[in-house]
Parts: sequence; structure tokens; C-alpha cells
Amino acid sequence: MRIAAARERKHDERRVAIVPDTVGRLSRLGVEVVLEHGAGAAAGFSDAAYAEQGATLTDLAALAPDLLLAIGPPPGEVLDTVRPGGLVVGLLGLATDDAILEAVAKRGLGAIALELLPRTSRAQSMDVLSSQASLAGYKAVLVGANLLGRIMPLQMTAAGTLTPAQVLVLGAGVAGLQAIATARRLGARVEAFDVRRAAREEVESLGARFLEVPLDAAEGEGGYAAAQSEEYLERQRALLAERVAEADLVVTTAQIPFRQAPRLVSGAMVEAMRPGAVVVDLAADTGGNVEGSRPGEIVETNGVRIVGASNLAAELPTHASQTFARNLANLVELMVTDGELHLDDELVRATLVVDGGEIRWSRPA
Amino acid sequence: MRIAAARERKHDERRVAIVPDTVGRLSRLGVEVVLEHGAGAAAGFSDAAYAEQGATLTDLAALAPDLLLAIGPPPGEVLDTVRPGGLVVGLLGLATDDAILEAVAKRGLGAIALELLPRTSRAQSMDVLSSQASLAGYKAVLVGANLLGRIMPLQMTAAGTLTPAQVLVLGAGVAGLQAIATARRLGARVEAFDVRRAAREEVESLGARFLEVPLDAAEGEGGYAAAQSEEYLERQRALLAERVAEADLVVTTAQIPFRQAPRLVSGAMVEAMRPGAVVVDLAADTGGNVEGSRPGEIVETNGVRIVGASNLAAELPTHASQTFARNLANLVELMVTDGELHLDDELVRATLVVDGGEIRWSRPA
Repeated sequence: MRIAAARERKHDERRVAIVPDTVGRLSRLGVEVVLEHGAGAAAGFSDAAYAEQGATLTDLAALAPDLLLAIGPPPGEVLDTVRPGGLVVGLLGLATDDAILEAVAKRGLGAIALELLPRTSRAQSMDVLSSQASLAGYKAVLVGANLLGRIMPLQMTAAGTLTPAQVLVLGAGVAGLQAIATARRLGARVEAFDVRRAAREEVESLGARFLEVPLDAAEGEGGYAAAQSEEYLERQRALLAERVAEADLVVTTAQIPFRQAPRLVSGAMVEAMRPGAVVVDLAADTGGNVEGSRPGEIVETNGVRIVGASNLAAELPTHASQTFARNLANLVELMVTDGELHLDDELVRATLVVDGGEIRWSRPA
Repeated sequence: MRIAAARERKHDERRVAIVPDTVGRLSRLGVEVVLEHGAGAAAGFSDAAYAEQGATLTDLAALAPDLLLAIGPPPGEVLDTVRPGGLVVGLLGLATDDAILEAVAKRGLGAIALELLPRTSRAQSMDVLSSQASLAGYKAVLVGANLLGRIMPLQMTAAGTLTPAQVLVLGAGVAGLQAIATARRLGARVEAFDVRRAAREEVESLGARFLEVPLDAAEGEGGYAAAQSEEYLERQRALLAERVAEADLVVTTAQIPFRQAPRLVSGAMVEAMRPGAVVVDLAADTGGNVEGSRPGEIVETNGVRIVGASNLAAELPTHASQTFARNLANLVELMVTDGELHLDDELVRATLVVDGGEIRWSRPA
């Protein structure tokens, strides 16, 4: 049995699904590990580094894997090298485009969509969405800090004091928490907001302030209901508008699986920001948390720059490949025993969107 | 008496020599403060913000200052607006080009070159070289971190451990120390080198390791002489070569006033670095600490990128202008009493390179 990774074909995709570190782990499953020449080059992994770990390097046409490990949905030219009955594993991008399913099915192959992995603790070590979101959160702050006309930390010098930057993070999931941690490392004052009030503890443990509209004590037992009221939500929007206007850097990270990203920052809120302020929208690819953001572009309006961050993890290709490849190796260990594929684990079943040429998945309503 | 700042004309110079915060301080000296329309725009300071502090906004032709505050050497069109007998203050760039002296002298003006300010504690609050170098050191690490394919801090996750980046800072002056502090903030392991062994304490207080070739104990009293021996210097070069090869990010900051920057990193040393590694050369403008670096460019060789950092402080225009303008206000307070210029302070004398149309400075041998 042969496991392989090809060079990713998508523009700006610098990651690779097998790294030298995971070659040994995969080999120990009784399989042959093969990489296309140059597959890891953009991530900093040379052909020699793979060969040293026992991998075979070859041309795309000779890849011929039974199990193809990929970052994004492989194009036809790559699918064509997969052996009959073979399986493709990757982030298939089903949220925005499911044409890959037909392409896999018509070749009689199978496919596993990593984005469908349940968010359970057992699946955590395979969760590429988490591992990549964490890196994207770090990178979002670096990109933002690098665009600011000011430094992040407090600085007291002979020329007087420079005040710390004010950073606001919207959405305190994996990416948001890493953004908070990175901004705090750099010495910024950080505030964060999340609709899940349970996020407060994690936010505060990172030294950031959790933004919350206080529930009027008089509301008593009706607190939860009050928190859903139109008046409460209006006060929440007003609070966010005020905090966005005060921020030097806003990082937005709110995503909803298979849905348009929620609009958190309106054009009017951007207009109220200071010239020189920066907004990094991590949800730009799925519609954007910020009005006016465009994927892969930096839009300037009234001196405020909105970074439409697209696939930020790929801009940390070395570490992103390392974590992605380890996630994949963990999953493969569930699927391969003594050089043979077994697709009966519940995590595999939950993600197997094409099985033996048959599509088993349809878009959630 | 009128003090003014024009918009800086040099390409990529986004700083401004008066900020809204210093308008009040200057006004209290009994002078009129005037700015060219849009002078602070690139640094994030609007005309309205200046006007609010009592400054007058005008066109360049009507600027007509007795004292012109500038970042870099003003071009002829700006010098032409200075009143007869007026004075120009700025970083005049004498190290690389002293044509400004003739331009000032032939107009019968005076000039103060901030780069000649003595490095004494009394001059510290006016020391623009220090205030700008500190910002450049911070920015160098941000720029470098943003080019790396890996994150800076240690990260322990469900997908395993990511090791911290290894950062090497060469030269532990103001810029170097700020680079060390910033890399440490971001969670990197940091090593630093400086020919001044006295730098050890400051380097270590920032949590970095000071690189030093141990003096053989047997050398005893001859320690200092031994440290100057060819054999010792050779061992020092070997140590640096080894540490450069291990680094993910190298920041070089060694400058010698009015001299070519010392060559610290050879082409062979760059060649021994890992693909994906980054070198930021803060001395690119004065010949470069790194072989192959080019000012204002990113040169890639064998997968290693060398950033020829040019005028990095100007990429933090808001804070750089704030500190520069405060430095200038401190100096102006030494020179102006009751609305009149007095050029008798020793710090003014030390920097007054053109006085009433007469050049008083010549390049050190």
C-alpha cells in the first residue's frame, strides 16, 4: 500500500500534507511513503529531507497512491494519479464548493473531508481546522501589527511615554484566543468579545478584558431571556461600536460552519475608527465579518486598512504543514493496519463523503 | 518668531517633525507654530488635529519659518521658504551626503545636524538617533517574524509541540536591545552578540543568551590582550558562523558613525542557513552588516531571505513622529526664550553645522 502527497496546486498554497517528521510514522504502518518532487519546497522541506526519512520522491504521474493526503481539494490532474479504489483525504472545501465530490466519484475513488471531523476530544489530535485556526490567529496579529504606524507595547523612554496599542478581538474560538495571546505577548491592551459568555474565563486567563453588556440586576431570574431581548442586543451593538472606534487593531474571527460569516463590523463602525487603524478579517473567505473586506486584499477607507485575510495559516507554511501533517498521521493511524485500509472507525465514517465512487454527503440545509 | 514643519518630500518618508502633542509646548515658548497642509497625514495626524492645538496650516510657499523642523535634509523647494537668517534642524544625513550644507549656506541660513548630538545623558531626551533606533529594532523583529514560515513561541497542542524560533541579534545597542526584547516577547529563544562585553548584562536582563568565546582561564592576566589576538577573533568568527546557521531569524544592527557598517555575516554564512530563514540587516543603508543585502529590497538566496532594512522607523510613522517631535521640542526649548533664538548652549554648538551661511563642519577623517 502506498501513501503519497503531491505538491499543492492552488495559488498561494504553500503547505504540504506530509512532512519529513511524519514519514517515519506513516512507514511504520507497513506502507510505502511517496512524495512528488518539490512537494515540500514552499514549506521549507527539501526532497533530501524526505528521502532521509525513507520516503520515495517521484514525478506526479508516477505517484500512484492508494491513499492521497492533501491540504486542499486536489485538482483532476492529481486525482488522476490515484490508484483505482484509492482514497483522498484533505480539507475539501465543501463549505464553498463541492465539485470535488463529483470529480472523486466519477473516478471511482473515495474521499474524506477533514472539515467534517466532529469537534470531540477524541478527534482533537486530528483536527486540522483547530490546528490551522490557531496559527491563523497568531499570524493575524503579526500582519496587523506590521501595518500599524505605532508599536504594540508600552514604551517609556527619554523622549516620553508611548502608550500600548489597543487591540480588539471579536470571536474567542481557537483563532481568537491565539490572537489574544499574541497581542498580549506583544504588550498590547486587549479586549475580546464572544457571543458565548462561557468564553469569558479563557479570555481573562490570557490577560484580556471580556466585553459584556451587564444584565440589569433587577432582571433577576429573567437574565437569560433578557440577554436575548432586542434591547439587550442593541446595547451590545452599541458597546461593540464604541470599542471598535477606540481600537488600533481589530481582529475578527467569527465563523459558522457551512454558513455565511456573521457581519460584526459595519461600514459605519469602520468609518468611526482612527486613521491608521487596522482591521484583520479572518472570515473574509466566507463573506467577511467586516463590511467592505475582500479576500486576499487590503482595502483602505478613510485611512483605515481592512485586511481580507485569506488562508492565513498557509503563510506559516512550515509550522502549518507540521501540524496539518501530524493531524493527518493521527487519522491515518486509525485507518491503516498492517498495510491495509479499514474505514470502520466512527471518525472515518463521519468524514467519508465519497465511498467507492458513491457520494454520501449533501450540503446541510 | 515662527516655527514650522513641511511635509517630508523623500520617497517613503512618512514621519513629520511636529505632532499635535508638541504644538502646545512649542507655542508656550512665545512662537507661532505653522504646518504645511497635510504634513502629518502619512503619520496619522490630520490638519484638524494640529489646528485644535493652536497651529496654523498653510501652503508650502507661505510657511516662512524662522526655525524649520525637519526629519531628513530638506530639499531646495523647502529651504526656499525659510526666512532670511533662519535655521534648519533635522537629521541631515551627513554620513552619506553633505550636499545639504552647501544648499543651506548659499541661502545664508543656519543648520543643526541632529546626528551630531553628543551621546551624553543631558542630550538623551533630544537623541533622535536613539529614539528612532529603538523603534527600528522593534520593527525589524516584526518584519522578520512576518516573513518566517513558523511561529515564534513554543506551542504545545493536540497536534504536538512546535518549538520556539531561534533568533540571533548581532549588535546590542539601542536597536539590538529592542529587537531582543521584542523577540523575547514573542516567545523566541534569543541569542545576542556585541563586541562590547559590557553589553552582556543588558542582554541577559532581557532573557537572552550572550554569545562569547570564553577566554582560556590559563591566559590569566593577559585576558584582554588575548581577546584581541587573531586566534581569539578567529574563534569568535567560528562561533558566530555556527550560531547564524542555527538561527531562524538574524537581526543585525551594527553601525559605526560616519563609517561603512562592519560586515558581520558573510555570503558563506548565509549559505549555511536553513531554507526559510530570514535575515534583517538594519545597516543596509550604510553598506550592510550582511553580504548581499540591498537597501529597501528583499533578496532571496537558497531559500534564505535577506531584508535590506532601510529607514525602518519611518514604517512606524505615528510613534516615530511622536518621539522625534518630542526630541525636537526638547532641543528647541534649549534654543528659544521669549520668542527669540539663542544658539549658545553646548548641545546646540556641537550640532550647528552651518551658522549664518557659513559651513562649520567637515567630514571626520
